Amino acid sequence: MSDKIFVDACFGKPTPYTPVWMMRQAGRYLPQYMKVREKAGNFLNLCHNPELAAEVTLQPVDIVGVDAAILFSDILVVPNEMGMELDFIKGEGPVFANPVRDEKALDALIGAEEAADKLTYVYDTIKLVRERLADDKALIGFTGAPWTLATYMIEGQGTKTYNICKKLIYTEPEFMHKLLAKVTEVVKYYLEKQIEAGVDVVQIFDSWAAALEKSKYMEFSWPYMKEIAAHIKAKYPHIPIIMFPKGIPAYLDEIDGDFDVFGVDWSTPMALAKEKLGERYVLQGNMEPCRLYSKEATYECVTSIAETMKEGRHIFNLGHGILPDVPVENAKYFVSLCKEVSKRA
Amino acid sequence: MSDKIFVDACFGKPTPYTPVWMMRQAGRYLPQYMKVREKAGNFLNLCHNPELAAEVTLQPVDIVGVDAAILFSDILVVPNEMGMELDFIKGEGPVFANPVRDEKALDALIGAEEAADKLTYVYDTIKLVRERLADDKALIGFTGAPWTLATYMIEGQGTKTYNICKKLIYTEPEFMHKLLAKVTEVVKYYLEKQIEAGVDVVQIFDSWAAALEKSKYMEFSWPYMKEIAAHIKAKYPHIPIIMFPKGIPAYLDEIDGDFDVFGVDWSTPMALAKEKLGERYVLQGNMEPCRLYSKEATYECVTSIAETMKEGRHIFNLGHGILPDVPVENAKYFVSLCKEVSKRA
Repeated sequence: MSDKIFVDACFGKPTPYTPVWMMRQAGRYLPQYMKVREKAGNFLNLCHNPELAAEVTLQPVDIVGVDAAILFSDILVVPNEMGMELDFIKGEGPVFANPVRDEKALDALIGAEEAADKLTYVYDTIKLVRERLADDKALIGFTGAPWTLATYMIEGQGTKTYNICKKLIYTEPEFMHKLLAKVTEVVKYYLEKQIEAGVDVVQIFDSWAAALEKSKYMEFSWPYMKEIAAHIKAKYPHIPIIMFPKGIPAYLDEIDGDFDVFGVDWSTPMALAKEKLGERYVLQGNMEPCRLYSKEATYECVTSIAETMKEGRHIFNLGHGILPDVPVENAKYFVSLCKEVSKRA
Repeated sequence: MSDKIFVDACFGKPTPYTPVWMMRQAGRYLPQYMKVREKAGNFLNLCHNPELAAEVTLQPVDIVGVDAAILFSDILVVPNEMGMELDFIKGEGPVFANPVRDEKALDALIGAEEAADKLTYVYDTIKLVRERLADDKALIGFTGAPWTLATYMIEGQGTKTYNICKKLIYTEPEFMHKLLAKVTEVVKYYLEKQIEAGVDVVQIFDSWAAALEKSKYMEFSWPYMKEIAAHIKAKYPHIPIIMFPKGIPAYLDEIDGDFDVFGVDWSTPMALAKEKLGERYVLQGNMEPCRLYSKEATYECVTSIAETMKEGRHIFNLGHGILPDVPVENAKYFVSLCKEVSKRA
């Protein structure tokens, strides 16, 4: 047994209650976060400043009472350190001025350990957090999945249609695979270095999994996620791996690989996830984040998930990130309710 | 048997081949459409001008060879004629200057037949198209589902998070139901009047079905769609009804109601739709529209769908709207291939 119930829960071991955290828990709904964010000047500065990033990473543990902190950073620091100029533009979100759409641009990207080595501010943040975090709380490191990172690298910004990426998938699949393989190598080193710096768990976010049809998801995303998980698992078997491919309820049957926890998004009913994956993986999730607008709606959902997952092998979470206009009080209520309803005699 | 194989196919009757059309087939990928669009000045003018709207409605039948025309219009003409000022802003999409978020604004909306009566330009377009369309081709009328319309009416524009709508769902469910019921009444009259004007089939588009979790979808959207379908079916049993709730593969088991065709979006594998719904409904769909970038990718998908649906009870379509940068040649290839692979001896 670990000294962290969160780590035990990831491995499916019995715990006194079902641990809980929230995606985007270090975020704009917290006035304390907004203060630090203001001090940093902008979002990217905050990611680059280990002292401030550590501070916001720790806030939700103290304020909301979650069982795990998640490293404050952004998935796009990886392509950024691969050599892509990154800006966060107000109202528009992240923008890469020079998207990667041909072999020349792809070959110019910094790869493998060299790119991962440039992310020192992330490793420094992890070291600071791990020093200050209570021993019984876990620190979660993370990365974006190669496919999700590739969508930004190719489109240059958020997109509704993903039409540039998809055109490449259907017309230049070799190019896509080459790009994804290059990102995959960087991500492997990146997670290794996060673990060496002190994270207790890692989560791979495939936020745009639902942008691909099944056959293409199973060719262009999931294999790279599995490759990363297998690599980390072989080297660090004591570190739990959480996979979060958002929005693929139609083919959970096809999901396999060497990881520990499957993150269930809110569009996937927990009972369906349990039926398809519950025997093979611990499940994490999955309250619809907008339920946090109402304590009643929160109660209804938490008790229902607790009933579905009453045999355990579960970690409470939202099914996507918490929204900025949620009352902090409701987030606290969610966290304490999850612990209370899952308390074991 | 009807004189239109499209109508026969909607009712699951045997046809010489599986008919085909494409969502957004009267659209920007056609240079001929762009010319008329320019003549109209802007998108909303085009919707309001029966002569020009009829012209673009008919274009894909002549140019691409589809088996059905779909009325050229926009789902938002309904809230527009309920009294909401509507603009289409370049790069931003549709905007309602005064969103409906309280009882006062809701009560001020024009309802029922009075709103439907104001959509004369739609009925005039239908009459013109039906006069000019070959007898063996079908004309599809349509509406947005009340939930999808409500998202625009409440948010005032497109949204990534639907947080204003969802906040209302979780905190003011009675208000949401009142709004949805009011839209439902208008839509019933709207479809009746479309049928009286000459459409042969109607489709209900629930484009933002996937924005809701299962339990809320089954409370706030599907019942209203079913109510509309039942109303139309009782009055016009000879008019096939197509339901298109986009992106709900996780709970097709729960789908029921008095309609004829279920539109399968590309995120739902056709084999899954067939297993869950194929015995009860004719299935429409579902090629990933981005496959139209490549003839090879189109061939692979069309032949695979044809194999899955070889016993018939199927209508070919894309799994979402065709994109503006698709080559017309590839759209023609898709349409002719669908007919060719499904030809019956």
